[in-house]
Amino acid sequence: MVTTGEQAVDIKQTASFSLANYLQEKKVLVESALSDSLAIGKPEKIYEAMRYSLLAGGKRLRPILCLATCELMGGTISMAMPTACALEMIHTMSLIHDDLPAMDNDDYRRGKLTNHKVFGEDIAILAGDGLLAYAFEYVATQTRNVPPERIIDVIARLGRTVGAAGLVGGQVLDLESEGKTDINAQTLSFIHSHKTGALLETSVVSGAILGGAKAEEVQRLSRYAQNIGLAFQIIDDILDITATDEELGKTAGKDLQAQKATYPSLWGIEESRKQAQNLVDSAIEELQGFSDSANPLRAIAQYIVTRKN
Amino acid sequence: MVTTGEQAVDIKQTASFSLANYLQEKKVLVESALSDSLAIGKPEKIYEAMRYSLLAGGKRLRPILCLATCELMGGTISMAMPTACALEMIHTMSLIHDDLPAMDNDDYRRGKLTNHKVFGEDIAILAGDGLLAYAFEYVATQTRNVPPERIIDVIARLGRTVGAAGLVGGQVLDLESEGKTDINAQTLSFIHSHKTGALLETSVVSGAILGGAKAEEVQRLSRYAQNIGLAFQIIDDILDITATDEELGKTAGKDLQAQKATYPSLWGIEESRKQAQNLVDSAIEELQGFSDSANPLRAIAQYIVTRKN
Repeated sequence: MVTTGEQAVDIKQTASFSLANYLQEKKVLVESALSDSLAIGKPEKIYEAMRYSLLAGGKRLRPILCLATCELMGGTISMAMPTACALEMIHTMSLIHDDLPAMDNDDYRRGKLTNHKVFGEDIAILAGDGLLAYAFEYVATQTRNVPPERIIDVIARLGRTVGAAGLVGGQVLDLESEGKTDINAQTLSFIHSHKTGALLETSVVSGAILGGAKAEEVQRLSRYAQNIGLAFQIIDDILDITATDEELGKTAGKDLQAQKATYPSLWGIEESRKQAQNLVDSAIEELQGFSDSANPLRAIAQYIVTRKN
Repeated sequence: MVTTGEQAVDIKQTASFSLANYLQEKKVLVESALSDSLAIGKPEKIYEAMRYSLLAGGKRLRPILCLATCELMGGTISMAMPTACALEMIHTMSLIHDDLPAMDNDDYRRGKLTNHKVFGEDIAILAGDGLLAYAFEYVATQTRNVPPERIIDVIARLGRTVGAAGLVGGQVLDLESEGKTDINAQTLSFIHSHKTGALLETSVVSGAILGGAKAEEVQRLSRYAQNIGLAFQIIDDILDITATDEELGKTAGKDLQAQKATYPSLWGIEESRKQAQNLVDSAIEELQGFSDSANPLRAIAQYIVTRKN
């Protein structure tokens, strides 16, 4: 993802370490932990459906953010890995359900057929439910060497992030807004702060909490995450217009087709890019006072506006 | 539910207290706690959909079992109430998703239109997701005066109960078995121990854990719950044949219509009744050694085979 010349330069200017290597290294760890997290049981079909989407690739940005902030606070990778996996289970579940015929009706995701296209609608609904429930079970049973109060705090935040105050609420407003031509920036911001921002924020914050962050550090990282979350969404909207199906691994141009309000449709592409860069700058400002060990977070913020998919 | 003459007699013979009063009293507490648990937020539609099914009545047997075992272990109602509510959120979520057109395609539930009939399929899927996530959030944020290790144990068990090793797994095998004429007692037992038994068991066990049960007590209560869980399902199967739509609050005769394997279809109605009574007797045996404070559990076990809906 960060191998093109232009991006490599951007990243080099931002941080004194290789983000490409960092992301690759962490991604390998996460992929391996995810594969280990879910063995095939009975009935096989449901485990296969869950694994199909959970192991379908992707940038694994959420787990990586969680690992990064845990390490930033002096914690270890292993303290945060169960939560990192749970974040990806939750993200995957939300993709499976959003793709359903009754929702966005998507046939492709991450370059592969969507879950319901392969396993049927009934199994896809259940695979999402199974992943969601397993996320909580996994954090509760697998987190080691962390005080139990922190684990409960993380579980509470994960729950809030998925529910009506998070992903679910954002998806509802998104569905309600489809085809409407009078969506303003405030509504759009509500949708995205719930659909995308909330889970990114929880990824950042949960790692910090597991690693022992103080309240003030949690607040700063939370603002960092809100900023990169919104920037992430603006770039997503731009890529839907400018990238190809192959680059995205899913159908491009879906937003235009569905007459969805997007940031480029409100502001135009250039202004949207500018706003995304401003948000990333603000995010990086929140990290002032953290040492060089926050360089991964700084570089990830910058990467979000330069990514190609 | 326990007001008919025949049932009152059964219950009187079993226990030295009025189960009807006990269930009614506890149900009022649970209904009130459930209504307080979920205020209307934004977007309103999703909260309304979640409340519609969560507050649609029902026996509230799962929360009541949870409160009963917590009290049996010397705990208080308030220690167990967040988990009791969570159990009902999870039960409600599983009903909403099971009723969807892609699954059992049911129009009525508890005498009211099913969630997707009122709010649409997309909102019904999301209302289920929202309730499931909120169940975990609610236990994590609202449980007071309980050591955190016990809360984590309960969350782990709730997760396992919903996932592929519980409700989801049972529903998958149930869907796969539909229309098949060669389902044996073993497959049927797998379906029901996952679909019905697991959540009843977790209801019983989680209350006990919150109240401070020792491992050996948890094991006995777990066996009690497995027995009443299977008895509950056998009676459900019988009622689907013998009861009317009005008595059930949902469409009767669905199993026959869908050519579902049931206990009566395997064993006949009379043998099924006998097996259910044997299971209830075994359940009550597991309670030997507990004092009179286990009378609610004894009476509930007996009630399960005499209920009319």
